[in-house]
Amino acid sequence: MDYPKCYDSKMRVAYYDTDKMGVVWHGNYLKYFENAREEMFRSLGLSYEDLEKSGIIMPVANASLRYVRPLRYGDEFVVRVSVEEAPLVRMVFKYRILSLDSELMAEGSTTLVFVDVLSGRPVKAPTALRG
Amino acid sequence: MDYPKCYDSKMRVAYYDTDKMGVVWHGNYLKYFENAREEMFRSLGLSYEDLEKSGIIMPVANASLRYVRPLRYGDEFVVRVSVEEAPLVRMVFKYRILSLDSELMAEGSTTLVFVDVLSGRPVKAPTALRG
Amino acid sequence: MDYPKCYDSKMRVAYYDTDKMGVVWHGNYLKYFENAREEMFRSLGLSYEDLEKSGIIMPVANASLRYVRPLRYGDEFVVRVSVEEAPLVRMVFKYRILSLDSELMAEGSTTLVFVDVLSGRPVKAPTALRG
Amino acid sequence: MDYPKCYDSKMRVAYYDTDKMGVVWHGNYLKYFENAREEMFRSLGLSYEDLEKSGIIMPVANASLRYVRPLRYGDEFVVRVSVEEAPLVRMVFKYRILSLDSELMAEGSTTLVFVDVLSGRPVKAPTALRG
Repeated sequence: MDYPKCYDSKMRVAYYDTDKMGVVWHGNYLKYFENAREEMFRSLGLSYEDLEKSGIIMPVANASLRYVRPLRYGDEFVVRVSVEEAPLVRMVFKYRILSLDSELMAEGSTTLVFVDVLSGRPVKAPTALRG
Repeated sequence: MDYPKCYDSKMRVAYYDTDKMGVVWHGNYLKYFENAREEMFRSLGLSYEDLEKSGIIMPVANASLRYVRPLRYGDEFVVRVSVEEAPLVRMVFKYRILSLDSELMAEGSTTLVFVDVLSGRPVKAPTALRG
Repeated sequence: MDYPKCYDSKMRVAYYDTDKMGVVWHGNYLKYFENAREEMFRSLGLSYEDLEKSGIIMPVANASLRYVRPLRYGDEFVVRVSVEEAPLVRMVFKYRILSLDSELMAEGSTTLVFVDVLSGRPVKAPTALRG
Repeated sequence: MDYPKCYDSKMRVAYYDTDKMGVVWHGNYLKYFENAREEMFRSLGLSYEDLEKSGIIMPVANASLRYVRPLRYGDEFVVRVSVEEAPLVRMVFKYRILSLDSELMAEGSTTLVFVDVLSGRPVKAPTALRG
């Protein structure tokens, strides 16, 4: 595969994602990021289910988020996820959440590591993901 | 053990439990019920962790909830959980959520079954829980 | 409008919906029900956002759930929501969660009431929803 | 008040906080951080409810998390939250999640801003919080 990879997922804010401030509770953006990551994997012909079935899990090592404009109930938005480099033992995802007018609502990144589920030790990324 | 069992747990509404209506999102009451159930188990000298380690899981077979008065951010409340009968293959929990002034805020019930984690089949309740 | 109404929504189990038992945590089914309810409203040319903007909120008065077969990470499923009768002051939704092979995975119902957001009092269903 | 401020909150991992990997889902740490922040406020004789009632809200501007060792169902842990400097228009919280053996499990930070709920504009921190 060639890098960088980029993928857009369209989503909508659910009622249960909001808090009493009337906007999406800040922790729920990590759900949107996860959804986008999964759809990107599927678009690459891999699924995270299959990866886990093959004995590799991908725990999150770190995450960062910056909130620019609030998302409100019913809002549609796009999560643009990108991976700049072919992964070796870790995979760095960057995210931009955009309104349908392409305004930046939030951005962030997560680093996931490849771990052998039996030994609990880091392993190399599956060949299918390496560049 | 003797039945009925009854146990009170005190909790407080978190910000992330609320939705844009300014009250606790209705699905989060099942978290409060779960917390109360766990504290009751602990008070009986059992822990649900230990039960799982012994090879028994307790999936929820059904749940019902009735919402009487809304809970708001910061509210303290009591979940009063009771088990009327010694369990055989299932355990029926009833819950009453009370304000600190003993007003009924919500009530409900959940039925959990005892399942052998290896075979996936129903099993009898552990001796420690039977009357 | 004519009743009964029926609507199918297709969804997929997210990683964050699962718990350590490896299946969807039982409380998350209320999210799936809410998603289905909203999509049904949209299909009727109403949106719950617009209803709230018109000054009517719809708190949940009660809910019931029966869990038949577990949903697992990555599973696709359909939530079939139906409303049997034109609503007056409350609206009763029934749900069936079906696998793509039409197996019943779970079912349930929720009753929502129409409430004036200013007075906090029950009101009649909007004309657009009455039969 | 004098800065730095530091506060320890003890919590326990709930079943619903775990995911199918058997550990706490990474987004739920932001709930633990929020709980710790609130308890710290309460320990300072302020409550976030009262702050909101006075017309000030505190949206989260950014967050970062680093995951060191997994938390599992039933684990007890401490969230040690600290605020290094008296806040002016923003308040920076740092968090360390420690096992009961003082092992570092995770750490992170969140920056919250003071906003006037009516105008939506940034305001200065309430006098009670300034050094």
